[in-house]
Amino acid sequence: MNCIIRVNMLTQKITEEPVPEAYRLLGARGLNARILLDEVDADCEPLGSRNKLIISPGLMAGTSASSSSRLSYGGKSPLTGTIKEANAGGNNAAYLARLGIKSVIIEDIPNTKDLFILYLGANRKELILANELKGKRVYETGEILKQRFENVGIACIGPAGEQLMATAGIANTNSEDEPERFAARGGLGAVMGSKGLKAIVIEKTKDKVRIQDEKAFMEGRKKYTNGLLKNETTGQGLPQWSTLVLVDPINAAGDMTVKNMSQGEWDECDHVNAQTMVDLINERGSGKMGHPCQRGCIIRCSNKYPGKNGENVCKIDYETVALLGPNLLINNLDAIAEINRKCNDVGVDTMEIAGALGVAMEAGVLNWGDSDRVLEIIDEIATGTVLGKLIGAGALSTGRVLGIKRIPVVKGQTWGGYDPRASKGQGVTYVTTPQGADHNAGYVVSAEVLKLGLDLDPLTTDGKVDVSLAYQNYAGTFDCLGICVMATYATFPDPSCLEGVVKMVNAVYGSDFTAETIFQLGDNMIASEREFNRRAGIVINRPPEFIVNEPLPPHNVVWDVPFKDLDRIV
Amino acid sequence: MNCIIRVNMLTQKITEEPVPEAYRLLGARGLNARILLDEVDADCEPLGSRNKLIISPGLMAGTSASSSSRLSYGGKSPLTGTIKEANAGGNNAAYLARLGIKSVIIEDIPNTKDLFILYLGANRKELILANELKGKRVYETGEILKQRFENVGIACIGPAGEQLMATAGIANTNSEDEPERFAARGGLGAVMGSKGLKAIVIEKTKDKVRIQDEKAFMEGRKKYTNGLLKNETTGQGLPQWSTLVLVDPINAAGDMTVKNMSQGEWDECDHVNAQTMVDLINERGSGKMGHPCQRGCIIRCSNKYPGKNGENVCKIDYETVALLGPNLLINNLDAIAEINRKCNDVGVDTMEIAGALGVAMEAGVLNWGDSDRVLEIIDEIATGTVLGKLIGAGALSTGRVLGIKRIPVVKGQTWGGYDPRASKGQGVTYVTTPQGADHNAGYVVSAEVLKLGLDLDPLTTDGKVDVSLAYQNYAGTFDCLGICVMATYATFPDPSCLEGVVKMVNAVYGSDFTAETIFQLGDNMIASEREFNRRAGIVINRPPEFIVNEPLPPHNVVWDVPFKDLDRIV
Repeated sequence: MNCIIRVNMLTQKITEEPVPEAYRLLGARGLNARILLDEVDADCEPLGSRNKLIISPGLMAGTSASSSSRLSYGGKSPLTGTIKEANAGGNNAAYLARLGIKSVIIEDIPNTKDLFILYLGANRKELILANELKGKRVYETGEILKQRFENVGIACIGPAGEQLMATAGIANTNSEDEPERFAARGGLGAVMGSKGLKAIVIEKTKDKVRIQDEKAFMEGRKKYTNGLLKNETTGQGLPQWSTLVLVDPINAAGDMTVKNMSQGEWDECDHVNAQTMVDLINERGSGKMGHPCQRGCIIRCSNKYPGKNGENVCKIDYETVALLGPNLLINNLDAIAEINRKCNDVGVDTMEIAGALGVAMEAGVLNWGDSDRVLEIIDEIATGTVLGKLIGAGALSTGRVLGIKRIPVVKGQTWGGYDPRASKGQGVTYVTTPQGADHNAGYVVSAEVLKLGLDLDPLTTDGKVDVSLAYQNYAGTFDCLGICVMATYATFPDPSCLEGVVKMVNAVYGSDFTAETIFQLGDNMIASEREFNRRAGIVINRPPEFIVNEPLPPHNVVWDVPFKDLDRIV
Repeated sequence: MNCIIRVNMLTQKITEEPVPEAYRLLGARGLNARILLDEVDADCEPLGSRNKLIISPGLMAGTSASSSSRLSYGGKSPLTGTIKEANAGGNNAAYLARLGIKSVIIEDIPNTKDLFILYLGANRKELILANELKGKRVYETGEILKQRFENVGIACIGPAGEQLMATAGIANTNSEDEPERFAARGGLGAVMGSKGLKAIVIEKTKDKVRIQDEKAFMEGRKKYTNGLLKNETTGQGLPQWSTLVLVDPINAAGDMTVKNMSQGEWDECDHVNAQTMVDLINERGSGKMGHPCQRGCIIRCSNKYPGKNGENVCKIDYETVALLGPNLLINNLDAIAEINRKCNDVGVDTMEIAGALGVAMEAGVLNWGDSDRVLEIIDEIATGTVLGKLIGAGALSTGRVLGIKRIPVVKGQTWGGYDPRASKGQGVTYVTTPQGADHNAGYVVSAEVLKLGLDLDPLTTDGKVDVSLAYQNYAGTFDCLGICVMATYATFPDPSCLEGVVKMVNAVYGSDFTAETIFQLGDNMIASEREFNRRAGIVINRPPEFIVNEPLPPHNVVWDVPFKDLDRIV
């Protein structure tokens, strides 16, 4: 990866720049943070000309290492006002890496209302006028672009991104060229929309990324692969059951997100758990679990949810199921999958939309569990009614407008499918990550509820700030590498698996990381992110007051981490 | 004023406390700021149990000094997230002062959905269950309470405050016992609503406030009164023409707020200027200008706008006319007055609603100039439709939800009827006051456009930060005294008039302020406000980007005060 592509949407100029030495050992979220800090005024308006959309593969992108090609999008978030990173699976990161592209920097905004496609190929890089795609939904956009450009990966936005909605994500094609791997969080689809960019089309080349020491790489890869395969979670739980494997244990722990965060368990979770999906997949025909979102992924936590006639609806995952299911009292996996597909199609983050809908149900705008009305409202996001735009603005805006005080957000972003009161260390991650509430930023649930690698009491606060910070650092490091956080289930408890990762990195870059020093990547990245936030005026870490005041059944616990312990993390 | 009344809405307990010595020479906005800093966690949620609503008369309240009984409401704002002060005319401050009440502190929130009246009398202070007032509009609430309690001043909220809308204000009875003097700005009506308080009823007593040196007071008062009478603005312009006297010069200066801030002048302003109103008042019967909002006010800048049959509609003032008129392209004073009355009735800030409507018109939600639809939407605020709630959330929320980038706010609050690009020092006030955009916080327009007391070029930036800070300090000092900022038109250019004020203050309190040291009141107050904001995490002063990027016709100027000059004010 030897060049940075800079695209100015005002002048329509595309330039190719060498990679500064200081960026060489940065990748994905880590590189995005550094470029944002170096180039973007943190006080800018997220949808204005001064913000930039940065798109970077990770350090390991394009190699044959499993799960190593997450694609990272970065910018200042219209949802949170903080620095923002959202990463997606699929193969786009690998394609960019094979083109030698370390990062794509989209800057400024056009002075017309035209829409563009950015084509990135080995021999040409160009902006193509594409007003015919205006208002097109994501799946149709994907179809049109696949027809028009052969042998490409696609990233695109839907009507939500074009309308600058703070819940808009960026769809990326998966291993089967379906545009449903979302860089969903924080409204970066709106940033892309603000720049008049409907899609990015990336040529698949046969080029390989350069590896300095192939032999060492293969040795590292073997250790890493073995670790993934023998780990119970990455080798069995996820490929066999998908992330829906979480539904039962999280509900059993009283940590589920139920009825807009008013309960921690729900007696109808067995309608939306992994067993239900596996049964349906068996009944309806495909019979196959364990889909990889990107080529060569061993973990294969994805799936293809089958419709009533066996047709592929879309992949569904735990966070979406928890927040659209128990959180909205929708006890029907078919309905959830259909809502998920429609969210994909209009181009929005399922989690943020679910957060907004939970708040809207609490306000009486629609009834609990009314999945038909939910589907109508998601269509209204595309058509842009006032209600559609309100839900499309996310949970915090929805709650403030509707006068609701129980809004499950930190720094404006809806949290994941784990109530912070019943997994208090996970709550520290929500409250303190520079990203706004983000379950993946430091997944302490794995220790507090799942007991993977570490066994912590979920209901105590002692030491949880330090645990969360360590997990944030660990996950952040993998975000820099572009390796899926799912792999950390295996590396965390298994020194040999982690050694494999370090060895691969050193083999590619000729670097001399150790299993200790590699975590400087996460450390430095998070420091950059916090510095960006400081400059943006985001200087306080606080939970929403309802989790401090309202005990969560069945444990009847509040989130009681002392605020003073949060104040040292700014 | 020898006691502080503390009302806990959870325990329903009312206590009477002596005034701490440190608070003795603080009043109104200054006392509110100090109490908020002393008692309220700045990181609290504005509508949660930790916020407080503080209600304080100024230092001169209840005396016979003209224009000296503004009543100041304070709290953390649900609109801006900053400290907030909103003050209102009428006699309520005088009534509180005569009861000896230096401040009323409303704290905590009830654990029921009951609504209450707080009755404050000489012999009893009590909370009265008042669920029969639920959903009642402001004018009807005023009528009911006047019938039920005789000889009282009333402060109340409308349906907007009950629904916790960020545009909700607090209505106060005027000199004719009509509840239409609003502490409008920043959503303090929602804070009152969050505490389950529908109204405050204040007994009118015959008691006088204590004055330590009556003779000196009368001497000071004479100087002050003479100054007000002989000043062109306070002695003639305002009583004869009301604040609508501003329409023509502001428009002529290209500083008007037109079509959601896309132009600085409008060729239909002659339909909404002072002459138009004066003609209507003459034609339709009353023939009288120069209404005082509170007893004994010499300036009498208020008015009674006459309906088609000569009936009193409500008072209208410049900011409301500028923002509902030119800003929405409504060229009809009857329509503006009717909208103003309906805003009063549902209990919202006309300025913030106008800001939200301008943004909604730009988004195509309703047509420019469609005053009938505006009236319907304001009814929807009361009934709580999604659109009503959206507009009721203010301009920033409305703009964000609707995907509009030209939103005329700073720190979430809509600015006044002067475009900052054509009065750049006024823009500094909008951007840097701790209150969020607030024209009265430092009215540099008086020098830049009106040339009163000082003649500054409105289109230059040199020295404007210092000018604005000086004006903020000056206005802030009068806010502490509880003297209407209109009086500063007279005191600013006339040392004798200011001397009169200082002499009155010293006569009441036995203090030894001079014409220099009295401004420490404003200085200390603003320092407290900034400190509160810092603790709340509000640490950046920035204009919305559109005023930096979009030249404003006819001068085709942008707001180009360097950001680094703003950074020293935090």
